[in-house]
This record gives sequence, structure tokens and C-alpha cells, in this order.
Amino acid sequence: MLRGVIPPVVTPLTDERALDEASLVRVVEDQIAAGAGGVFVGGSTGEIALLDDETRVRAAEVAVEAAARRVPVLAGVIDTGTARVVRHAQRAQAAGVDAVVATPPFYVAPHADEISRHYRLLAEAVSIPVVAYDIPSATHVPLPASVLGELARDGVIAGFKDSSGDIAGFRRALDAVAGTDVAVFTGSELFADLALELGAAGIVPGLGNVDPAGYVAIERAVAAGDIATARREQERLIRLFRITEVGDRARLGYTAAALGAFKAALWLRGVIATPATSAPLRALDAAEIDEIRGVLVAGGVAITR
Amino acid sequence: MLRGVIPPVVTPLTDERALDEASLVRVVEDQIAAGAGGVFVGGSTGEIALLDDETRVRAAEVAVEAAARRVPVLAGVIDTGTARVVRHAQRAQAAGVDAVVATPPFYVAPHADEISRHYRLLAEAVSIPVVAYDIPSATHVPLPASVLGELARDGVIAGFKDSSGDIAGFRRALDAVAGTDVAVFTGSELFADLALELGAAGIVPGLGNVDPAGYVAIERAVAAGDIATARREQERLIRLFRITEVGDRARLGYTAAALGAFKAALWLRGVIATPATSAPLRALDAAEIDEIRGVLVAGGVAITR
Amino acid sequence: MLRGVIPPVVTPLTDERALDEASLVRVVEDQIAAGAGGVFVGGSTGEIALLDDETRVRAAEVAVEAAARRVPVLAGVIDTGTARVVRHAQRAQAAGVDAVVATPPFYVAPHADEISRHYRLLAEAVSIPVVAYDIPSATHVPLPASVLGELARDGVIAGFKDSSGDIAGFRRALDAVAGTDVAVFTGSELFADLALELGAAGIVPGLGNVDPAGYVAIERAVAAGDIATARREQERLIRLFRITEVGDRARLGYTAAALGAFKAALWLRGVIATPATSAPLRALDAAEIDEIRGVLVAGGVAITR
Amino acid sequence: MLRGVIPPVVTPLTDERALDEASLVRVVEDQIAAGAGGVFVGGSTGEIALLDDETRVRAAEVAVEAAARRVPVLAGVIDTGTARVVRHAQRAQAAGVDAVVATPPFYVAPHADEISRHYRLLAEAVSIPVVAYDIPSATHVPLPASVLGELARDGVIAGFKDSSGDIAGFRRALDAVAGTDVAVFTGSELFADLALELGAAGIVPGLGNVDPAGYVAIERAVAAGDIATARREQERLIRLFRITEVGDRARLGYTAAALGAFKAALWLRGVIATPATSAPLRALDAAEIDEIRGVLVAGGVAITR
Repeated sequence: MLRGVIPPVVTPLTDERALDEASLVRVVEDQIAAGAGGVFVGGSTGEIALLDDETRVRAAEVAVEAAARRVPVLAGVIDTGTARVVRHAQRAQAAGVDAVVATPPFYVAPHADEISRHYRLLAEAVSIPVVAYDIPSATHVPLPASVLGELARDGVIAGFKDSSGDIAGFRRALDAVAGTDVAVFTGSELFADLALELGAAGIVPGLGNVDPAGYVAIERAVAAGDIATARREQERLIRLFRITEVGDRARLGYTAAALGAFKAALWLRGVIATPATSAPLRALDAAEIDEIRGVLVAGGVAITR
Repeated sequence: MLRGVIPPVVTPLTDERALDEASLVRVVEDQIAAGAGGVFVGGSTGEIALLDDETRVRAAEVAVEAAARRVPVLAGVIDTGTARVVRHAQRAQAAGVDAVVATPPFYVAPHADEISRHYRLLAEAVSIPVVAYDIPSATHVPLPASVLGELARDGVIAGFKDSSGDIAGFRRALDAVAGTDVAVFTGSELFADLALELGAAGIVPGLGNVDPAGYVAIERAVAAGDIATARREQERLIRLFRITEVGDRARLGYTAAALGAFKAALWLRGVIATPATSAPLRALDAAEIDEIRGVLVAGGVAITR
Repeated sequence: MLRGVIPPVVTPLTDERALDEASLVRVVEDQIAAGAGGVFVGGSTGEIALLDDETRVRAAEVAVEAAARRVPVLAGVIDTGTARVVRHAQRAQAAGVDAVVATPPFYVAPHADEISRHYRLLAEAVSIPVVAYDIPSATHVPLPASVLGELARDGVIAGFKDSSGDIAGFRRALDAVAGTDVAVFTGSELFADLALELGAAGIVPGLGNVDPAGYVAIERAVAAGDIATARREQERLIRLFRITEVGDRARLGYTAAALGAFKAALWLRGVIATPATSAPLRALDAAEIDEIRGVLVAGGVAITR
Repeated sequence: MLRGVIPPVVTPLTDERALDEASLVRVVEDQIAAGAGGVFVGGSTGEIALLDDETRVRAAEVAVEAAARRVPVLAGVIDTGTARVVRHAQRAQAAGVDAVVATPPFYVAPHADEISRHYRLLAEAVSIPVVAYDIPSATHVPLPASVLGELARDGVIAGFKDSSGDIAGFRRALDAVAGTDVAVFTGSELFADLALELGAAGIVPGLGNVDPAGYVAIERAVAAGDIATARREQERLIRLFRITEVGDRARLGYTAAALGAFKAALWLRGVIATPATSAPLRALDAAEIDEIRGVLVAGGVAITR
């Protein structure tokens, strides 16, 4: 079920920072039209950490309705502790999503066995598949390969998203789940081609919001054994990823710069109504959005604004 | 209002991991009897990161009722983003607490100005004082002294809790708020004496759960200019802090070992009914609890179990 | 000139911790016989950080004599500051090596422009090529891609060895030197295949001491477009790399465990006379060496002891 | 023997980056005149990491001659591995210094027992006292308190310099050496007063180059029980330390900014002939030196240029 390009979609907001449901519907359509294998709402790129519970749930509902079972909908259930994550997961299941995506506990400092227990308790609490999500740049709690292997063999998880940026670790993950049904995904925008060549079930790139067709092209090229095409598309997308470096870091945090760039690009493409992001993130300014426009055009992305 | 010894109290749980209200009442009484200047529920030591919203709110309500206005009650409103923290703060205010304690946003990577904006939005959303809380070991987002100074001068915050462990930074914080009413606290168990000598308004030591009278003795000795007594008590408490090193780290994460030790000690003292901690933390075993008993006895703490 | 498999060879020692010249000659022969494109003495795996200056120079001389111009000899000139590195480089040049390999300054905290200046001064001080070496796990000073690009365009460096473990950064490095003659190498044991597929001039794997033929097979397979063979060999070598995890980390640091494993394997293969490492590293014990023997045999490495 | 204020003195250089012996003599005189208890050449502030071996040795010789046995001279023997450190130490001993100061091995990743062995081998190789030096910001290898205690009890080391910035760790160090003759020093510029109140044998502040009399005043005030004076001086010196923040970090690394500021201040005071620092560090510009002049004047430091 979990396969292909499944971008962590942004959560479009109105200028008043309410969920912009119409824009989210367009985002989902944009993905499906491009050939995505699923949509993932409430990931890090979905600014999940900045959304209140109601918005989290409503975004899941809207995505489920928009997807209309054409592709599976995954929902992030990102929070610091097991009880909190379980609640989010139960709400997401009630909203109709097909799977939930959870990091290890963070803020606290868990032992590997406590991370394992976290996933076991989560899997017991819902009846939909659980995807484990390793993103140490955000959580500062790496998910050990040994835990991954054990969870895979015991049928606790259905998937694994590796956003560590470590391709040797990605190989270890593939090896750890070998012989099980666990689908392994990379969250990398920058080596999607390599991950697929190594045997990834799919990819979950934030930049896939901006150019879903590009990542789908990589997936198809690798599937067809056409590595040259995959490489060429990947290199184009690496250049496109420079939109995340446009925002002035003397004024913006990394999240504001990267997430702001994705939303600016979706706005420039006409998919979402405004590039607004959640408090307390600051917005890109007009000159920065202009520069992003230039990078998109140079990268072959069609702009409507 | 915010002064003195204000320990981050544990959240007692039943063996079924429900809030043990009777034990929490005893914890609050234990603090007030020892001379605490306030109680802080829902801090890191209150395992806030592992509690669901209902338990967070109920713990605040119970503490408010137990304190019965004899001392102020502070509540932690720890979460990843502004909207989430505002919700917690509004619920805590409704529960009757006297102040809320908030870290910078985490999981995301905010700019200093975004951290500042986070506190400004929070302060606008509630009518009780806001205390800023710097605990980079948990959040991985340090709160810059420049932001602290600006928030203090603009009247956004009423207090600052420094759990960075960096006493030079603590001095910078005192300097940054000089001339304002902001009360500066250290979260350190290990240099409470020095922080008070330097001008801290008070101290917020997790070990204050175990030996509140010890920290009150330090506070009073420093106030009286009796540094020798303060030093002696502090050194005793440093030895007592070794209870956090008893748990076997081959089996337990740091949080499980440290928080487990505080709860074990409160159980051995007869204050709480069981040392249970939240999932997914693993428990100390009988031998470890025995070893903690030994450290407590050697440190002059009265044991009833 | 700089191409192919160029392992960072170990520095064989006698049991008295003097340079074992005969063993070093055999190591060089072993590499050349396997098809290595060069040998790199005095790298991190050459325990350069633990060797005195005389041993550093003598090892270079022995390697130069042993290689006898059949393949180029590179020498690490690893030290904390420019003046120190220049001295090492001049001595290495006098010893006859073909290129020197230098990290950024470390222990100090240099700016990117100071790193650039470091390499420019080094290149002016010798008449042989300079290879820049990025190994942040050892130096804690990453070499920025912007510096790399500038040094490449200005003809300051002839090569770049990336031991960051970050394949997205490796791609950035390839892009940064595009259009220049700079040869880019990965230091990774674990994704040599991918680095070569992406366009690496060669690979510098520490595990290449243990199984040079394996890495040469990867290089040749990639050159022939036979990715399946490259992948299979790489996966075998990933399993072989587990020899670095045999040493008991409760007793040994990472360097002792990894370097000790490489030397133990070379000893088991009969290439070096003893697996001794420099003070203050502790040795693997007999049981650990037995376990390494098992991993080697399972990995298809021919053992003579 | 090792007691009091022992600043890590700068290594004055000529504009051609040769050792400026006359200036170094004046630096030593300046320290002794101010009441220093010793001088420490070749520390981190002595830019040891950037000096070649000959300059290291010659600086030690000059300092020994200048001190003329009025105070002890300590020499840093900072290098990555045991054999290298032993060589430096033997040369320093031959140069006549009274003690050597050594960090754990770095660049490599040693186990605690390997760090211990490093110091034991060093102590066996020289007949002068060894001081252990913990500066994890530079080495990224912390020196564990357990190792310190063991080395102290076994008579391996005569002193310990703690530049970790962690005052709780400093207390642990004092406790670890309790009952031995080991002298414990802090390298902190910012809590010299507190360290002395806690029982430090002395202090080794880089800023002591700029205002040795200030740190001597703190030492004497604490010895006399006059904490108010110690506090006042310390607070003045904290403000003075802002000279290290003047250099533009968009252009200079931290070392260039901090070390450059110390040398600029010594030049402004007329003690050294030029503020030159070693390659590859960039120099402060005229405006920055002017700003440093302002901070010095405001801090009560007498300027002659």
C-alpha cells in the first residue's frame, strides 16, 4: 500500500492563520495529478509542530476527503510522549487516514528499549499501520537500526521514513527490515534517486510540494532502469532545492526559510492562496519571493503569479 | 510574587498511570511544610512531555486547590509551537495557576526574533505572568540573552528559569534583566548556592522534590549571609543528587533514571504511593531502589519505607 | 594522476611501537597487487594523530620506496595549524610523496575564509599537489562547499577527500568543483559504489586495507556500467565493516576499535607482523580477534593465521 | 607551587609572524608586576595550535629566562597523541619550565581508560609535574571526573585546569581530587570569583593578559573573605570580556576574534609591539581595535596607544 512518491504536504493557511481548506484540496489534487503514491499530511513540512490539535485533525479530514481513496493518506502524529502521540493517532484514525507517522519521544531522553516500547504501545492503540519516522535534526533522538529491525520483525510497524540524511544509515535500515514487509522511505530531497536505486519503497521529499512531477519522474526512471534520466532529474531538483537558501538567515530561522520557500513556490504556482506560515515564523519578503521565482523558472517549474 | 525555592514537582501516577491526586496533594503539602516559595507543576521533572492534555490540566487544578493560595502555583506549558503553547496556557490559567512557564518553540528551528515573537504572542493570550524557560538539553533551542533582555525590558515576561547549566550564562541573564522586575531562577541542583549569592530570585531544583528542606536551608543561609552553611548544605545535596546515577543506563534512558530516582525517593519518604512513571519510561528495579535508599540515608533524608 | 582506489593504509608498528618497515612494504605491495590506484600514508587510519614526526616521515619514505613509482603516494599532513601543516608537507615532499592531504585547522575555530587561506598558504609552500580533506568527525571543523569551490577554481587544490559521511554534501562537492580538474574522493567504506556512480574520481576507504580487491572490484564494475556487481560487492563490504563493531566499547574508544580491527585483519591475512597500535590506544583481546576472524571468513577474505 | 593567577599568556609575534621575544619578556614582566602566581606559555590563548615546534620551545625558553624563578613557568604541550605530547613535554622540560599542561588526545576518539593511560605515559616521560587540561570546546574530548580522580590519587598529575565552562563539573573536579595535593584551576574568565570561593587553587583566565591586576584583586579579595570586592571586580572583568565580541564574525572565526582582542588590548596597553596573530587567522581591523579601545577605557584599563 505504501509506495512511490508521498510528499509531506504543506498545511495551507489563510492570512489569519486558519486552515485554508480549499488550498489544501488543491495541494492534494496537485499531488495526485502528478502521480504521487500518497499524501502525507502533518509532517515536519506540514508544520505539524506549530499547529493546534484541531487544525491537525481538520487537515487530515480534508486530505482524506480530497484524496477520496485514490491514494492513501498518511498523517503525522508528532509529539513528545507516548500518551500524546496515541491521542493524535486515534484522532487521525477517526479522521479516516490510512496510516500514522510517528517519531520517537523527544524533549525527554529515551533509551532504545523505551523507543521500542513507544512504538509498540502506539501500534496497540490504533488499528491502522504505523510508520516510524527518524528525523534527528528535529527530535535529537535518533531511532537506532536495532530498534527498527526488531519492530519490523515483530510486525509493529508497516513503514519507516528516514530523514536522517545519512545514506549509510539508510542502507542499514534496508538491511534491518530485510525479509519483512516494512516499506522504507527516504525523506531526502537530495538523494531520492540513490535511495530508490538501493531499494526504497518510495520517497517523501518536502520539495515534492514544489515539483511533484520531478520526483515522480525519478521514481519512474529508476523503475525503468533509466538511471541517466533519474540522475538528470535529481540534479535539476537539487538546484531547485536552493529555494530553501534564499531566505535571509540573519532574519529567519531555518524552518521559516525552508517551509516559507515551499509555500512561496506553491503560491507562485497558483496552488495555494497565500504563502502564510504559522506563528512564530517570520515571512519571506517580496525580494526573497522574487528570487525564489527566479530559481523556479530556471528550474523549469511553471509559474502562474 | 515569584521568589524562593519553587521545585518542579513530580506528577504522581497510579500503577495504571492515571494521575494520583492524593499523592500530588501530599507533594504540595510537603513543599509548603518545608518552606517552599511556590510549586511548579508540569515542568520537565513533572514529566510534562509524557502527559496528555487532560492530565496536565488536572494536575494544575489539584495543585492549585492543594496550595490554597498559601504559595503561588506555576504551570509548565511545554510544547513545540506557539498555538499549542497558547492553548496549554489558557487551560492552565482557567485551572487557576498563578503563572505559566514556557520554553522556546522546539522541533522547529526558530530565529531569535521568532523566539521573541513566541513569548509576545503567549503573553498577549493570557492575563497571568509568563516565565521564560531555557533548557537546551531538552529543547536544543537555546534562549539567547539578547531575547531575554528585550522581553524583560518590554514587560513581556515576569521571570526566567535558566536550566542551561551554564553559570556564566546565568550571570549574563541577571545582567540582561537588570533594572527590570524579572525574577531570575536557576534550575540547577548543583549550584543553587552560587546562583542565590549572585542574585537569583530563587531556585527550581528537581532534587527539591526529594529534599525541599535542604534547598530552603540554602536559600535562608544565603539570605542571612551564612555562606558556610549554604555551602555545606549544597555539598550534601550534590552527594544526594547521585541518586540520579543509580539507574542502569544500559537499560534506562536519562529521563527514566533521573525522574525515576526522584519518584523512588518520594515513595521511600512516604510522600507518594508508588514510583510509577509514564510510558514509555522503564522503571528502576528493586536493587536500584535499594541503592537509592542507601544514598538517601547517607544524605540524611528520613525514610519511611 | 589521482584516481581509483587509494586506501588510507595503516602504519604497521612493532610490538615496541616502532615503525615496522617490512610490514609497511607488504601493505603497499598488497595494495598494488590488488589494483589500487595509489596509496595514502598518514591518514586518519594511518593513526597519523598518534605518530611522532620522525615516524610520519619515515613511513612516507618507506611507502615511496615500496611503491617505486608504480602508483602515486599521498601523505597526510594532519595538524592543528598552518605553520605546523606546512612543515609536515615540506618534509613529506622531501620524502618523495606525490601529493599531501590536509584537513582544515582544528582545535582552533576558523572562519571559512581562514580555512581558505590555510590551503593557499600550504599550496604556496610546496610544489606537489594538495588534497583537501574534510573529516568533521575528527576535526569538528567542516570544510564548506563554498571554500572548496573557490580553491578548485583558483587551482589551489588538486583533490578533495570527503569523509563527512554526507552524500548530499558529496554531490554538492562534485558540483562545486565542476569544470575544474579537481578529483573528488569519498572516504566512505559504505557508499563507495554510489560515490563512483555519481562521478567520484576514486575512493579512500579505511576498510580497503582489509579487502583492497573488493573496492577495486566496485570501481571496475561501476566503470563497466555493471551496477549489480558493484552493489553486491558493496553489500559484502558493508557486512565486512562490522569488524569495527567487534571491539568492546566499554573498554575501547572508537579509534581503538576501528583501527584495531583493520590491523587485526591485516595480521590475520598475514600482511603485517603484529596488530599493535600506538599509545594510548588499548588492544583488542584474543576473543575479539577471533570474532573478527569469523567476520572475515564469512565475508570471503582469505585468512592465513 | 601551583597557585594564584596564572594567565595563559599570548605569544607575541612580529609582523613577519616570528616570535617577538622582547614583547614576550614584557608580557611576563607585566604579569609578575601585577602579582601573578605563575605564567602559562603555549596554552590555547598562546595560540599553541598554530605555532611550529621551534616557536613553541623558544617561547618557553624566553618565558623561563624572563621569569627568572620569581614565579613558576608552565608550558602547554598540546597535541593529538601521546608520542607527540611526550616529545613536546621533553623539549619543554629541557627549556626549563616548571610544569607541563596537556589535554587528552584529540582528533582520535579515546576511551576514558585510554585518556588515563595517556597521562600516565606522559608523567613517566618527564620529571616535572603534569597538569591535566580539560577544554572540550577545542578538543571535543571531555576529561571525565573519574579519570581525574584516579590520576590524582595515583600521583600522576599535580594540577588540573578546567576550561569546560561547567561549574557543576568544576565542583565535581574539586571533589574528585579531595584529599590529594592536586591543584585545581578554572580557565573561566567569567566565574573566577566563584571558583576561588569554592576552593580553586587558582585561575587561568585568557583575559588575565589584558587585566592581570583585576584577577589578582579577585584572588586577594576572596582570600581575605571580601566577597563584595571580588564580585565587583569580576563584574567589571565580565564587561571587559566583551572585547572578544567586537570582531566581526562574518569575517573572523571565534579564535581570531578572541585572541585578536587580547593581543589588540596588550598592544593598546603598550605591552606588545604589534597585535599580529598566526596564519591563517585574519586580523581585526582599525575600527574594531578602536571599539576595543573604548571597552578597555570604559573598563578602567590604562591605554598608552
